[in-house]
Parts: sequence; structure tokens; C-alpha cells
Amino acid sequence: MESIEASPLYPIANPRSIALFGASNNATSMGTGLLGSLLALRFKGEIYPIHPKEERVLNFKAYRSVLDLPKVPDLALIVLPTRLVSETMDACGRKGIKHAIVISGGFKEVGGEGINLEKDLVAAANKYGIRFLGPNCIGVANPRQKLNTTFMVFEGAPGFIGMASQSGSFVTQMFNYLSRHAIGFSTAFSVGNEANIDIVDCVEYLGACPDTKVIALYIEGIRRGRAFVQMARSIVPKKPIVAFYIGGSETGSRAGLSHTGALAGPDRLYEGIFRQAGIIRARSMMELFDVCWMLGSFPRIAGRRVMIQTHSGGPGAEAADACGRAGLDLPPLSSETIKRLSPFVPHTGSISNPLDFTFGKNITDYYWDIPKVLLEDTHTDVLLFYFSMSGGTLERTTRQLGFPPDQVAEKTVEMINLQSDSIIRLLETHDKPFVGYTFLNLKDPLVRRLIERGVPIFPGPQRAARAIEAAYRYTCLRDKILVSTSHKEAASR
Amino acid sequence: MESIEASPLYPIANPRSIALFGASNNATSMGTGLLGSLLALRFKGEIYPIHPKEERVLNFKAYRSVLDLPKVPDLALIVLPTRLVSETMDACGRKGIKHAIVISGGFKEVGGEGINLEKDLVAAANKYGIRFLGPNCIGVANPRQKLNTTFMVFEGAPGFIGMASQSGSFVTQMFNYLSRHAIGFSTAFSVGNEANIDIVDCVEYLGACPDTKVIALYIEGIRRGRAFVQMARSIVPKKPIVAFYIGGSETGSRAGLSHTGALAGPDRLYEGIFRQAGIIRARSMMELFDVCWMLGSFPRIAGRRVMIQTHSGGPGAEAADACGRAGLDLPPLSSETIKRLSPFVPHTGSISNPLDFTFGKNITDYYWDIPKVLLEDTHTDVLLFYFSMSGGTLERTTRQLGFPPDQVAEKTVEMINLQSDSIIRLLETHDKPFVGYTFLNLKDPLVRRLIERGVPIFPGPQRAARAIEAAYRYTCLRDKILVSTSHKEAASR
Repeated sequence: MESIEASPLYPIANPRSIALFGASNNATSMGTGLLGSLLALRFKGEIYPIHPKEERVLNFKAYRSVLDLPKVPDLALIVLPTRLVSETMDACGRKGIKHAIVISGGFKEVGGEGINLEKDLVAAANKYGIRFLGPNCIGVANPRQKLNTTFMVFEGAPGFIGMASQSGSFVTQMFNYLSRHAIGFSTAFSVGNEANIDIVDCVEYLGACPDTKVIALYIEGIRRGRAFVQMARSIVPKKPIVAFYIGGSETGSRAGLSHTGALAGPDRLYEGIFRQAGIIRARSMMELFDVCWMLGSFPRIAGRRVMIQTHSGGPGAEAADACGRAGLDLPPLSSETIKRLSPFVPHTGSISNPLDFTFGKNITDYYWDIPKVLLEDTHTDVLLFYFSMSGGTLERTTRQLGFPPDQVAEKTVEMINLQSDSIIRLLETHDKPFVGYTFLNLKDPLVRRLIERGVPIFPGPQRAARAIEAAYRYTCLRDKILVSTSHKEAASR
Repeated sequence: MESIEASPLYPIANPRSIALFGASNNATSMGTGLLGSLLALRFKGEIYPIHPKEERVLNFKAYRSVLDLPKVPDLALIVLPTRLVSETMDACGRKGIKHAIVISGGFKEVGGEGINLEKDLVAAANKYGIRFLGPNCIGVANPRQKLNTTFMVFEGAPGFIGMASQSGSFVTQMFNYLSRHAIGFSTAFSVGNEANIDIVDCVEYLGACPDTKVIALYIEGIRRGRAFVQMARSIVPKKPIVAFYIGGSETGSRAGLSHTGALAGPDRLYEGIFRQAGIIRARSMMELFDVCWMLGSFPRIAGRRVMIQTHSGGPGAEAADACGRAGLDLPPLSSETIKRLSPFVPHTGSISNPLDFTFGKNITDYYWDIPKVLLEDTHTDVLLFYFSMSGGTLERTTRQLGFPPDQVAEKTVEMINLQSDSIIRLLETHDKPFVGYTFLNLKDPLVRRLIERGVPIFPGPQRAARAIEAAYRYTCLRDKILVSTSHKEAASR
């Protein structure tokens, strides 16, 4: 692909005008829902509803036929009953439309007659050279372009995760989920039955997409295995790919089978494909996005040696346990580091790994001096940092410091700013990844401020540890591909 | 123990008056923090700050010595520098105080001289028959009694989880965490170094506590192994006990060692102790509380056969995969059930297990008719139900239905009430456990309403599946203990 504009997905993800089939003045119809989603995000392009009877659909002039449109739109968005889809595709072709999304289901995934209906649909598109996403998908979310063709209202902000998913729900259900973690989609594709455009095309697009730092895949089955592996290997040296594949247990495999109609192959086969392709494998949707969060924040982790900084023993022990189970190492502190730390850690604390600060009176000890020493220890690769002080407790402390009630909120914010600025300054002046974990709400003020500024802070140490380990696996896979590519290049010279 | 009042922990968890050592007018001192926590929760009992110099501490009259107090308080709460603690305990004994919490650290857990200081402390208490919690603990939270002796501000509401923890953080750090899940502590103890009262005493107290439906333990090491097992076995037939023990990986074991000074024994030994004791083992703090949530909501799960109801394929496949990995079964639907479901599931959907509803126009199909049929299927033990429709999407739909803007919020609430009332009615009329999973925020209106009414809805299907499996393990362990007890009774007759 010469440039991202050459991808068939470019007009699909960046349309300036859309012909919409299936929206009406019936609020509970799915097509009307899609129109609502486009409007809610304030889509800037033109929208042309096509409706056999209505003069207007919501606030838009409606057209009886796509052939009546004043221009050829970039994209046809089709949410009609199954039996009407092929003839609609044909009409789009006659109008000269070259790209479509077919949301409608009832095709190959239901078996029987659906298989023939899908063949008809593909034939209609091929006749005019139309490239399309679907059927049985929910389309695209490209929040930077204010585009959301899904039934669900978009929540959150644009982010760095490019996604291609064989489940539409795993696009829409993640809008709110990702925004809670202060991350988000660059562009997300629901691929549906992949009758024309498939997941390999999506990976290619996302590989070229400048807003995408990391690619997330939800996979139930891959048809073009070899193309998939080659495509991934060409992208992985530049950006990481993380995949959640279901098929690991027989139950999941059976469930996957009935869903998009793709055959969910055996787990071991996919394990091999991912390894060959340089793709990190996640074990759940949450882990998929945890690893993306980690890799989008810190694309390179040099090794598996983790230093843990905590306030208290229990969360330190749990983090150590989690790191151990995830296959990470906890090196002992160097004598130099121990010497540098001793002025900052009270006698009730423990200067080891995990470092247990217990309780101190000086805020900057915990948020600046100690992590600075730990980041400068050359025997560790990552600092895993525990956040425990809630906004409520900070506010109580401020109040007890004797500030007048009307200044308490302001002084609390000052304290939180001091803490977050310290940590951001550490990140700006040190190369080593800094990862947080907490049991607080991710909306708690200090945590929120930091995740919004790009620091990954995971709910619980297990998620943090597994994300660190997966990110390190990316380093290894990437290096392996680079070495093998350079060997091949050398051999071909 | 004849009654809960006979427990040495009763006055500690339910004091009517407290002598507080260590609070001052210095807002950053830990003792002042504790006083702030007591005040924030509006503790109803008397508080007597003891301070060598101040006339008043915050708004309280201060006393130079505990001997000056106008009465003998139920409880001494000690947050003083290590070297002052023994003599303070002695003074409390002279005053006639019989119960204490020692928050101060610097004892056995730091080694060296700390070991002797702890011996002195124990001797001082024994001299007067004082029972105490700690040292090196953060005390008790009993929100029904408005008691919170910890440094952190209490958040949330009283709940049904009784906790005893060898980490204080795992009490305080969970205040907000539990309230986010609409669950909470009945009473939570931080046991510290267990110099006098130990975790076995706490288990006994919580076993007798009428507000406690399930007991949660965080364990780094148990000293009185035999007493622990006997105590647990006497409680498990009445209420479940769930434990998170660290020591499973060498790293965690090492970290545990340095914390409370208890020796973290080998993982397999504890595995055996828990099995013998009938205790469910959790693998993380989150899992600990997930299992408590499940067991507090549905104390008896009859088997491992799970029926999954979803809107969409991906979340269904992930749930099926998660159930498979957790060791649960997904039985096929009976022909009777399939027949009864067919009017409610559109042709794009899939009537199997997982059931995939896809998209329908009638809300009551998904929230009443379908789950009713599934709950009545006699071949399944649990219904696992997917929640995906966010408040934002429902509000958008309401708006599109054409209601005037000022009625949209009200109509949305009506729709959410209809859905939640349906499900609550199902729970009231069926015995089978109903468990939810979602990727939505637990504050999203429908989910929130349901969890506040006692329906466990887990973030992600893995947590739900593991909690279901653990709850079924409780059924098995409980039955085993009951059988072995009745055998013994029969033999002794």
C-alpha cells in the first residue's frame, strides 16, 4: 500500500458524505439509532437518508432512491432488512458509489438461505467494484473524524488504539470502558462476516494510520492466515499488535463458531500464528486493552526486572506475588540505592523490593525523592508504583491543617498538583517506564490527573504485572523480527 | 464462645468510649488523622484525647494522663512513638482499661530491638489482663457503629463482609473499592503483629457477628494452625470463609516475610490448611471480594452448569471461554426451552448457550421473558447475564422517541426502572442465582440500580466465572464438612 489513502478503508473511515439506508422516523429502528449516533458525535459531513416513503427523516431531507441523490456520496451505510440489501448494493453501484458498510445481519452467520444471500451481496458489489465492510457488523468509529456508525452513543475522546474486531460489541462496549481509563480508539472497525474487506485489510490500514500507536484485535477465526502473518510482521517493527483470540477452551470455541460464521480453529494453531506474526496474545478483553495501554504509553521495556514502591506491606506483597506469577523478576536493591534511600524512608518502613514507605510527613519523599532514586537504579527496568491516598483523605488532611473551609478544596487541588507534577517531571527526565497500580477509583483526583497525562495506572497489581510482562514480550518479538529481516536482507544481497 | 459479647473483640469493635493517645493539634500526625476519621464518620461515643501538653485537641478537652479521665473508657487507642507504647499500656492497666488497639509500629516487624519492645508491651498488657489488637495495625472499621480507627476516611456504607487482615491497607484501601461495587464491610479488623489478639480470634468474632454474611481473610502467615482450622470448620457450615494468601510465588513469599514479621509458610501447606478448614481460596484481593460478593448474594449454588444470556456474540464467546477456563459447564438448551424461547429471539440471533439475542425492539423480551425461560430450565444452575445498554444510549433512544427535552431524563429513568424491576421480580420469584457481567461503569444507571438491590454484576466475564466457580466450591466444601461432622456425631452416639 503506497499510502493510507490507497486503502479501501480510507473512505470508509473518513467519509465526507454518507448515503444512509434504514433510518426512519421510527425511533426504535436500528437505522435511526445509527443516525442518532452520527448526530450525537456531530459528524461534519453530509448525510443523505434514503427512504421509500418519508419526505424527511429527523431533520434531513430524505430521498426515495439513491439514484436521486444530488451527488455521489463517499460511503453507503446500509441497515435494511436482509432481503433488501443486495438490490440496494446494486443501486449504489449504479449510482457510482464505491464504498459501503453493511450493518444488516441474516447472512452467512445464520446459515441456510443466508449463505446464498451473502453470495448475492458479494456478486452485486463485485459487479461495480464496490469495497465494503460487513455484512453483520456495526461499522466504524473514528472519533477524530466525528464518525460513529454504530448503534451505541460514542463516549470518551480519540486515543491511540486502532482496533479491528470480529465482534461489534467489542467496539461499542469499549467506548465507555476506554474513556474510564483515559485511553481511546484512534479508529475501530467491526469487520462482521468479512465478505469483502477482511481483518487483514484492517490491520494494513491501522498499520499506516498515523494516530494509531498500537493495534488491538479481537479474533474468532482468520481466513487468510499467510497474508495475516506477513502483514503483521511488516507492521510489528513499527508498532505493536495485541490480539485476543477465543478458542482456548472448548466451550469458547463452540461459542465462537456460532457467531460470525468463521471457523474458530484450534488454540495451538493460533498460538503459533501469533508467535510467528510477532503478535502479543491477551487472555481477555480487559487484558487486551491493558496491554495496549501499556504499549501505547511505553513502547519499549528493556527487561523483566521490576522495582515496586508502596506505602504498605499488603499491597507490596500482592504486587510482588503478581509479578512473580506473571514471570517478572524483583531484583534486590543495590547498596548504592539503599544508601540514597535511607534519608527518606522512616524506621517503620522497609528499604527492599518491594519498598514499603509506611507513613511519612513529607509528601515529596514519596512522590519525588524515592521514585527518583528507584528510577536511577540501573538494575531495574520498570518502576511499579502504588497509589493509595484518596482525594477524600487528602481533603480531610487539608481541613485539619486549619485552612478556612472555603480554601480547603483549593488547597487540596494544590497538593494533588504538587504530587502529579512531581511524577510527570520524573517521567520527563527519566527513560524508564513508570507504571502505577491502585484500588482507588480511576476518577480519584490524583490518579485521574496522571492517567490523563499518559501514566498507565492499573486497577490492581495483577493487571499491571501482566501488562508489563506482555510489553516486554513485545520488545523480544520485535527484536526477533528485526534480526530475522536483516538476515534475509543480508542473504538476498 | 457463648455470645459475641464474650469476645475480647466486642469492646474493640463496639466501644462506647475511647481514650486516644497520639492525637494533637498537628494536622499531619497520624493520631490526629485517626481522630479526623472518627469525626468524619460521626462516631457517637465519647472520645478522650490524652496529651502531655495541650489543653484541647481539636474540639475536645485533653487530659494530661489517662489516670485523670473521669471514667474508665471501653477502649484505649494508641498511636504513639514506639518507645512510649509499653508505659502507656501500663498506665491504661492502672486506670482499669481492659481493651486496646495499638496502631504504632516499630516492634517485632522491624526486628532487633523491636522484638524486645514487643515483649515488654505484651508483658505490660498481661499484667493487667488487657486484650489488645496490634501493634503495627490500623485497627477497626465498624461502619454500623460509626467506628473507624484507621487513618483513611471511611467511604461507602455498611455491608455484609466481615474481614480480618494481616495488612491494614487491605482494610482502608477497600473502603472506596467496595462502595463502588455497592458492597461493604460489616466489621473489618487489621490484626498487625497479633501480639495478643490474633486472626483466629477475629474469625471467631466474625463467625458470631449477625451482620456478617461472609468472612474475608488476608493472610500472610498463621501461627495457631490447628485452632484456625477448627474454628473455620465450626463456622463454614453457617457462613462461608474466603481467604487470599500470598506465598504462592517465591517473590510474594519473600515480600510477605518482611511485612508483619509472620513467617509466610510454603504455598502447598496453606493450600492444605484451607482445604481442611473448608475455606475458599482467592488469588487476589479483587477475587477475594468478588467471591464474597457472590456468596453474600447467593450463598448456595447447586452446580457448575451455567447458562449465558447476551446481546451479542463477542461478549457471549468471551463469557463461554471464561466459564470453560474456570471449570464451569455450559449445557445445551433443552428442546422445551428452545421452543419457549423462539417467540422472543429474532432470526439474526442464536438460541443456544450462550444465547445471543442480537437486537430486538421489545425491552421486556431481554429483561423478562427470555431470562424467565432460562431460569426455569432445570438443566442449569446459574444464569450469567450480559448488561450492555448504557444510560447514554437509552437516553438517546428516549430523545429520538420524540419526547420533549424536559421529559427525556424522566422517561429514561422510567425505562431503567422497568428493566431493573423486571430483573428484581425474576430474582424474587426464582431460586436460581442470577449473576451479571458488564464492561459498563458500575455507576451506569441500570447496573447501579441492580447492584444496589443485591444483584452481583462483575466487570468482565472472567471475574464472574471465577466467582461462580468459587461459590460452587463453597457448596461442596460445606457439604463435606457437614457430612464428616454428622459421621462423627453418629460415631460418638
